Amino acid sequence: MTDNRLSSLLDNEQLQPLLPVLYIAWADVELNEPECERISELSSALPEMDDESRATLDTWLKPDKPPTATELSALRRHIREQMKQHKPTLVAMCAAMKADCGEKLTAAVAAYEQEHYISGAGVYAEIFSHVEEPVQQDFAEPSPSFQAEDLQAVLEGDYASEWAAVRRILGAESFAYSFGESSESQRKAVLDWLKHLASEKMGLVMMPESVGGKDDMPAFIHMFAALAMFDLSLVVKFGVQFGLFGGSILFLGSERHHKKYLADIASLKRLGGFAMSESGHGSNVRELETTATYDPESGSFVLNSPTISSRKEWIGNAARDGRTMTVFAQLETGGEQYGVHAFVVDIRDDDGALLDGVRVEDCGHKMGLNGVDNGRLYFDQVKVPRDNLLDRYASVSTDGAYDSPIPGENKRFFTMLGTLVGGRISVAAASVVAARKSLAIAVRYGALRRQFGGGDGDMTILDYTTHQLRLFPALAHNFALHFAVEDLIQQFRHRTPDTSRDIETLAAGIKAMASWHAISATQAARECCGGQGFLSENQISIIRRDVDVFATFEGDNTVLMQLLAKNNLANYAKGFEQDLVLTFVRELTRKAKTELLEGNPLIARKTDDDHLRDADFHRDILSLRAHNLLVSAARRIRKRIDNDVDPFLAFNQIQDHLMSYATAEMERHIAEQFFTIVDAMSEGPARDALEKMRQLSAIDAIYSDSAWFLDNGYFQPEKHRALRKVRIRLLAEIRPDALAYVESFAIPDGCLSAPIAFEDYIGKSPLKQVDATES
Amino acid sequence: MTDNRLSSLLDNEQLQPLLPVLYIAWADVELNEPECERISELSSALPEMDDESRATLDTWLKPDKPPTATELSALRRHIREQMKQHKPTLVAMCAAMKADCGEKLTAAVAAYEQEHYISGAGVYAEIFSHVEEPVQQDFAEPSPSFQAEDLQAVLEGDYASEWAAVRRILGAESFAYSFGESSESQRKAVLDWLKHLASEKMGLVMMPESVGGKDDMPAFIHMFAALAMFDLSLVVKFGVQFGLFGGSILFLGSERHHKKYLADIASLKRLGGFAMSESGHGSNVRELETTATYDPESGSFVLNSPTISSRKEWIGNAARDGRTMTVFAQLETGGEQYGVHAFVVDIRDDDGALLDGVRVEDCGHKMGLNGVDNGRLYFDQVKVPRDNLLDRYASVSTDGAYDSPIPGENKRFFTMLGTLVGGRISVAAASVVAARKSLAIAVRYGALRRQFGGGDGDMTILDYTTHQLRLFPALAHNFALHFAVEDLIQQFRHRTPDTSRDIETLAAGIKAMASWHAISATQAARECCGGQGFLSENQISIIRRDVDVFATFEGDNTVLMQLLAKNNLANYAKGFEQDLVLTFVRELTRKAKTELLEGNPLIARKTDDDHLRDADFHRDILSLRAHNLLVSAARRIRKRIDNDVDPFLAFNQIQDHLMSYATAEMERHIAEQFFTIVDAMSEGPARDALEKMRQLSAIDAIYSDSAWFLDNGYFQPEKHRALRKVRIRLLAEIRPDALAYVESFAIPDGCLSAPIAFEDYIGKSPLKQVDATES
Repeated sequence: MTDNRLSSLLDNEQLQPLLPVLYIAWADVELNEPECERISELSSALPEMDDESRATLDTWLKPDKPPTATELSALRRHIREQMKQHKPTLVAMCAAMKADCGEKLTAAVAAYEQEHYISGAGVYAEIFSHVEEPVQQDFAEPSPSFQAEDLQAVLEGDYASEWAAVRRILGAESFAYSFGESSESQRKAVLDWLKHLASEKMGLVMMPESVGGKDDMPAFIHMFAALAMFDLSLVVKFGVQFGLFGGSILFLGSERHHKKYLADIASLKRLGGFAMSESGHGSNVRELETTATYDPESGSFVLNSPTISSRKEWIGNAARDGRTMTVFAQLETGGEQYGVHAFVVDIRDDDGALLDGVRVEDCGHKMGLNGVDNGRLYFDQVKVPRDNLLDRYASVSTDGAYDSPIPGENKRFFTMLGTLVGGRISVAAASVVAARKSLAIAVRYGALRRQFGGGDGDMTILDYTTHQLRLFPALAHNFALHFAVEDLIQQFRHRTPDTSRDIETLAAGIKAMASWHAISATQAARECCGGQGFLSENQISIIRRDVDVFATFEGDNTVLMQLLAKNNLANYAKGFEQDLVLTFVRELTRKAKTELLEGNPLIARKTDDDHLRDADFHRDILSLRAHNLLVSAARRIRKRIDNDVDPFLAFNQIQDHLMSYATAEMERHIAEQFFTIVDAMSEGPARDALEKMRQLSAIDAIYSDSAWFLDNGYFQPEKHRALRKVRIRLLAEIRPDALAYVESFAIPDGCLSAPIAFEDYIGKSPLKQVDATES
Repeated sequence: MTDNRLSSLLDNEQLQPLLPVLYIAWADVELNEPECERISELSSALPEMDDESRATLDTWLKPDKPPTATELSALRRHIREQMKQHKPTLVAMCAAMKADCGEKLTAAVAAYEQEHYISGAGVYAEIFSHVEEPVQQDFAEPSPSFQAEDLQAVLEGDYASEWAAVRRILGAESFAYSFGESSESQRKAVLDWLKHLASEKMGLVMMPESVGGKDDMPAFIHMFAALAMFDLSLVVKFGVQFGLFGGSILFLGSERHHKKYLADIASLKRLGGFAMSESGHGSNVRELETTATYDPESGSFVLNSPTISSRKEWIGNAARDGRTMTVFAQLETGGEQYGVHAFVVDIRDDDGALLDGVRVEDCGHKMGLNGVDNGRLYFDQVKVPRDNLLDRYASVSTDGAYDSPIPGENKRFFTMLGTLVGGRISVAAASVVAARKSLAIAVRYGALRRQFGGGDGDMTILDYTTHQLRLFPALAHNFALHFAVEDLIQQFRHRTPDTSRDIETLAAGIKAMASWHAISATQAARECCGGQGFLSENQISIIRRDVDVFATFEGDNTVLMQLLAKNNLANYAKGFEQDLVLTFVRELTRKAKTELLEGNPLIARKTDDDHLRDADFHRDILSLRAHNLLVSAARRIRKRIDNDVDPFLAFNQIQDHLMSYATAEMERHIAEQFFTIVDAMSEGPARDALEKMRQLSAIDAIYSDSAWFLDNGYFQPEKHRALRKVRIRLLAEIRPDALAYVESFAIPDGCLSAPIAFEDYIGKSPLKQVDATES
């Protein structure tokens, strides 16, 4: 009987179009009486329905006699054979079962389908699940709208040759990516790589011409950043040796120090580090505890760090390789204290043995960057020759007299610190490149990986809106930050005493934004690659671990953002004080502009596409927010101080406001730089492509803070909603070019993936045969 | 002459109150003529100013003769000696220099200070920077308002004895936290720990009484989660062996499987794993490729995975320790396919040698969890006895006839999968505990660490608003999620066939929310501990690395959230279909409530403190959002399908909307659970403390999505602003209890910090002496 009803059904010509309905219905639930009747009704829409067919159908519509698993399976196989390939709707399935099933049936099935639409998609796909030989379709990515090389040229600008040089060097065999598990093996590999870079004279790029260098700090920063395409432990070790150790001697020392040390630093004949942070003094380095007391008898400074809080912490190159350190300590002479100064201090002899009074501890295993030998340094009355004071900003005579061109300690300290701003800029630049690499891997993976077989199986996971939302705004911010870092490097290159302070402030903000971006973008990339992203060999998780501390070193990001806010508040207050008229006029102009936006409901409600994508709109609205937050912060501080609140506490009470301001100011600034770049490009596909990224970056920043704009009346709700839509539309516009965007980063293949690149087995070749006999 | 003007100044009685002004002014900038005049003016407010004093002062106010560094240093030392300790304002400094300096001067200095207020705080602190012997003040934490044990009792509820048991077991010497760098050493340690747990009979807790177990899955989940106080590799290995391997046999097998395997699994006599995921099929496991074809000749299934995409990936216990696996494969018999079924498959013999046809690869090094031996499994025509089909939901007779109580393959598959929901619940529970540990470490560190010496030096970094903003909302969400997980465990415990599907849906959402929380909270904790957080020995970074994959395994979070949204949409649609009248009435009631909020400007504008903290307000507004997003999602899907969009694509087009809905629904649900708990507590300090956390958790969720509420008119701007303020106020209210909150987690000391606990050297003992001679 069972066999009967199965073969009767499958052989019945009339009933063919109804088979998918029958299968789907029974496969999903146990049908009750009304549900069976509902399906029975459908059959009346079949052309030429006869009594025999109806009787056959009825045997399949008895709630007390549901089909068996075997019957259902056979029914499905039959449907599959007839239908040949997946159809997304019941109507399409019916039509595929029998070409001329008639309009009446189509309409009836469409109505039935609508009643059940919600659970549809998943169930329909099941018909073609786990077939023995899935058709191996070679779905092609859409053709990109622009040439990746054109965008690459824009990204690299004047530094294309530096990028090319680093790519060439990274192509050497020794740069094969290997990750021994022990810190020792990683440290050894990183030191070997560093030696290779030194042999390529990369350390000389930043050195003065007097020692055979190129005196080109911007080029050096680019090469430093480009190394982030490969490995961040190497980036950090490279930065410690040349940028921090070499840089401190270059900027804080005088000619005789340059001559004595710089060439050896560039060649790695002398490995060293930068010993500033102490266990008790990370962010507040002005309060370092280590002392350097001048002793006229011996003509030397006595270096001392008697407490745990005064020991030097996190010092790169200290635990293993470093011979000499630039040590920061409180200078005392003649019973007076003159604040923090830098000294060149040998800690090991030529054989690597520690010198008297110096104690070193290995910081131990870390979340990442285990290729860097961070150590702790303790000094017990260590004698340092007077000559080793880096004396560009202060000197001590043999008899102990102190002299400095900058009498105020505070100002002197910040002047010295300011010369080292290159470190912060470099960290920002490397953050952008590290995030780039993570995003490139995730985009490539997303464009290969298929799951759930949606859209007739031609959809990759990168076609999912949620996936795009996690990767594309991050990609857009990556481009935006790249140009902001480029601008910063150029400002740094052309700095004057008048602009130095502002550049330091800007560097603080850009470093915080870039390193947080690197963390969040890499995190998104990791999650978007699922378990594959968690595997070390696929590198994203290594970047994720390494980059985490970028939010902490060279200044804790939160502290840096507060610094930015405070400096800008001080400038703003100074503006009022020193040039009241000018400031007043500027305020009026700004106010007028604000009112134009604020008071005009047409703009707050404006929702047309052109307007929402318009750079002027983005710049106006981002400037408005930053300025508004600055003025209101100043007002709130003033109010508290007027009420006798301790200024320190007053600032603390509005820290969240200062953080919002600092973020707003950075987003304004970053959007401005991106605009400048795109604006200067000549018309063409590359410009259009970059303009899309500019739009997404700006719109994402604005949309993410919609609450503020709505709160302040700059948006009406319809504008907020329109922005949401245009943001989603941009994702779809960017999708076809996704691979071209990441190709513009031109990351060498060797840096992009491990020996077993995951596309080999996950992506294009899901059915690649393996020899399962080897073990 | 220089010596002259210094001693004249320091010895001059009249000028004493002005010295801080003089010092601060010169230390910060080079003064110009008007600035010098401005300071000179101040002196006219001094009582009894004579000509000699004025002449002395004038020698210090010449732009062309600024003080030297030595003079400034001596001046500062003099001020320091007179003032004795840091004063936060210039006025206070003047008063400290000379008690009776008069109201006139005070007013004049106050006016001067206001002109310069912005840069004040930092500069003033400099006077007492790097003094030789900073006063070691033993600042006490404020007394908590409640007993940590009372809150602990609420957290542990009926499972206090399970928590106590785990704490006792973790106290054993073998659980000393050690982290060898190699994966091999970590794997060995984790296996040893697991053996210890098995010897304590922890594996038996979930097993049926028939094999000597306690049949208490909720208790097992609590113990699993409690192990997250120690190490997540152990948690995962424990979960793989007992929860997944044991659980799959328990729930999918029949009595004879239980007898044969469960006791040995609990005792670790048989180590095993759960082989479901394949390289090509992570999220979409219904489409697994591995096949198990029944061969009536030999009476066995033939297991085959001929491609790379069909190999089993990420299988815990596969690479090293596992002897037997529960393998999921497409069952075929008699030429028909019946979908995914589970089989017990031996992969190694008693000596650990791989069996014929089985190939294993080590997944290799990972971002974290390197104590778990994840492997890849390939099967080449491996014969599995017919008896080894776990046959609770389907059986195959000796001649190959298939039988199942659930004929529909789709339904059968999801029924089997549904029995394994305990895994997802366990991951959620462990996520909450892992985040707890990170937050506990960060709060303890924050309450010890001082920096920048604000507030007269008694401020810890936990007193900073930005620091609180990073940790306290995370802490509040941690409590909220804890109770949501507890509720889920209880629902799971009392599940019926009718409620199972809803519990699975809820588990999907809670797992996603809890694991994302664990990642973000641990990230915040890491950054809040600065470099110390990056060191492995301080454990936060280990948790951070390990917990990352919690967002991926047991279901990718994004996929799970989409699943939640789709299931709820289906229920919602079904509601309309099946019980139109009831649904309609419900809609009307809801609508009335909505309008009450929506239409009533008084509520949209209501900003009083009681209202903003009120649980009813939180529940109403969170329900409203979830419901609104659900209805509008249904409307948008319907519109697309009416326009002939493929349902799969229709869902994809509004994925961001579905994600917003799923988040909103989870936040509503979580807030509801938290309310239920607090509501049931008796009045007292513990209830008040928990109520603060409830408020912060709800307000933070609402405030974070203010744009939505503003957009939809539920908030007027003043309400948004008032919420911002009450959120910040709550931080300050929570601060004095911060340590008590984390003490309520009762994490054993041994689990909280490494051998060198960082408070030893960073916190209370900044001046602890160390012996710097050892090396």
